[in-house]
Amino acid sequence: MKQVTLKQIAENLGISITTVSKALKNYPDVSKKTKALVKEEAKKLQYKPNVFAVNLRTKQSKTVGLIIPEVVHHFFSSVINGIIEQAEKKGYLVIILQSNESYKLEKKQIDLLISKRVDGIMISLASTTVDISHLQEVQSLDIPLVMFDKISKLIPCSKIVIDDRKAAYDATKHLIDSGCKRIAHFRGALLPQNSIDRFLGYKKALEDHGLTYDPSLVYICENVNYEEGREAAERLLKEHNDVDGIFTITDLVAVGAIAVFNERGVKVPDDISIMGFSNWFVSQAITPSLSTIDQPGYEMGKRTFKQLYKEMKAKKEGAPLPPKIKTLDTFVIKRNSTK
Amino acid sequence: MKQVTLKQIAENLGISITTVSKALKNYPDVSKKTKALVKEEAKKLQYKPNVFAVNLRTKQSKTVGLIIPEVVHHFFSSVINGIIEQAEKKGYLVIILQSNESYKLEKKQIDLLISKRVDGIMISLASTTVDISHLQEVQSLDIPLVMFDKISKLIPCSKIVIDDRKAAYDATKHLIDSGCKRIAHFRGALLPQNSIDRFLGYKKALEDHGLTYDPSLVYICENVNYEEGREAAERLLKEHNDVDGIFTITDLVAVGAIAVFNERGVKVPDDISIMGFSNWFVSQAITPSLSTIDQPGYEMGKRTFKQLYKEMKAKKEGAPLPPKIKTLDTFVIKRNSTK
Repeated sequence: MKQVTLKQIAENLGISITTVSKALKNYPDVSKKTKALVKEEAKKLQYKPNVFAVNLRTKQSKTVGLIIPEVVHHFFSSVINGIIEQAEKKGYLVIILQSNESYKLEKKQIDLLISKRVDGIMISLASTTVDISHLQEVQSLDIPLVMFDKISKLIPCSKIVIDDRKAAYDATKHLIDSGCKRIAHFRGALLPQNSIDRFLGYKKALEDHGLTYDPSLVYICENVNYEEGREAAERLLKEHNDVDGIFTITDLVAVGAIAVFNERGVKVPDDISIMGFSNWFVSQAITPSLSTIDQPGYEMGKRTFKQLYKEMKAKKEGAPLPPKIKTLDTFVIKRNSTK
Repeated sequence: MKQVTLKQIAENLGISITTVSKALKNYPDVSKKTKALVKEEAKKLQYKPNVFAVNLRTKQSKTVGLIIPEVVHHFFSSVINGIIEQAEKKGYLVIILQSNESYKLEKKQIDLLISKRVDGIMISLASTTVDISHLQEVQSLDIPLVMFDKISKLIPCSKIVIDDRKAAYDATKHLIDSGCKRIAHFRGALLPQNSIDRFLGYKKALEDHGLTYDPSLVYICENVNYEEGREAAERLLKEHNDVDGIFTITDLVAVGAIAVFNERGVKVPDDISIMGFSNWFVSQAITPSLSTIDQPGYEMGKRTFKQLYKEMKAKKEGAPLPPKIKTLDTFVIKRNSTK
């Protein structure tokens, strides 16, 4: 069975295509009787309007694009969940693209979304993105753009973020308050803003509480994963057996470190306390359960779409909105990996 | 800056829109010189073809739809990953919709994708889907359809699945081989095919190995989550303290059960052995680490898109393919929750 066209409905009823089209759109110059006939026939034939034709007319695709570094990731999948639930409510479809943390791919995907004429774009940047000309192009084309989580301060668009520096400060302070004196940091790569901010929050908390910042206690986990958490923990045990606390950039790294400590008989939190970041499901399932920072992924996704929707609506009405930065709250979740 | 049209290029160069359009498409009746001029101007103005207009012409949207019960789920997010990576390679965009295990929402989403004129649809059914008329409609419209994981045997389309019954049989046999004599099953709801098949695999393995099937040892976890795993474990400890093995429908349920046993001082695997299903990341991170069945999510996603792509191509060429059922291999992963 082929998709039904207005022409077929018109032929079946022996009326013009224009009348069929007007009847389906409830134009006042078509009689009630004709409207009823046309609608019945359309229903019978399972007619569905051709959205491409509709889009050409209204210049709206009712489709938005989302570029995200990683899909298989508790935080980002929570963000996706928040976005598509909210989009569903407003009748928008979401095209999801994964940059795999690659700037090159991200740039290509932005081009693709522009050529698809999406009504708006949401993005969390790849770790490797430094050049931002692709995002400037989005803005020069007047396409509403909202960034979340991993943002660039150089693009004047709306952003939904957390205060990474404050959250990291709180996490480190929690370790200090529980009695830790010599605190290591397992950080991410050198470039991403959130990796920088979490490091700065850690450093500031040490300084504010009279603890010496020691650069040799900072370990870099480039890919921010379980394996690197294990490796950093192994190195730490060899190089600094006086460390009594670790703040990790994310839960996955902490889970790797705890696995090593469990295997080596290092007691968590008695010998070393550990703070994660993100509050993945896994943090409550491991032994000991992981103290961490709650990072509101679902809420971030929901707010990101809501802001984009407002901007798409404002653009349509010819009254664009100024960009807005929304910082979501984070808080410390105390579990059994800290005293 | 507005999006650039053919008209603007034509006006800037003082030639007709038709010539511009032909030049951009490399028509032979336009001179090389004009083509070069047009292309240069198009590049200068950052012209991007309007895909809606292109789509109307070619009747291809280069967009496919994916309906999935849950996004925040290790297995499904792995499937999404496999699908969008493969789609990227072939220049397709993926619209992702989440049914939240609701038949009503799933039906609405199918309608939405049809009205968007996607070139193909991929779906894993909601647990509550019994009526399949919405999928019959997809087929009656000749839209290529591929089902994966949670499928309906009543729809004659291609399917990418695992053999749930065999995988559950293998999981139960692993418990039997390790010495378990009285094995409980924490199953899912009564309707979904994979819940039924895993239960049947469990039952068959008991019967084939001379163990009595006891219905009172089968606990239902409707929502297949951590909390229900905890609850079932609590009930099991009260009702059947002679059980020495449990096969759970999924890792999340097993993780809940292990948490209860750890809290109550029940030793895993010495007192009770536990087998999960899916091989989520969490299964390697908990203590003791969870023996489980590897369920190849990424591979399933990759194969699902590949099959859909073949069928979209075949349809375009006017030579539709017969449906194909592909069963992916699963295998037992032995960790520390079984002897």
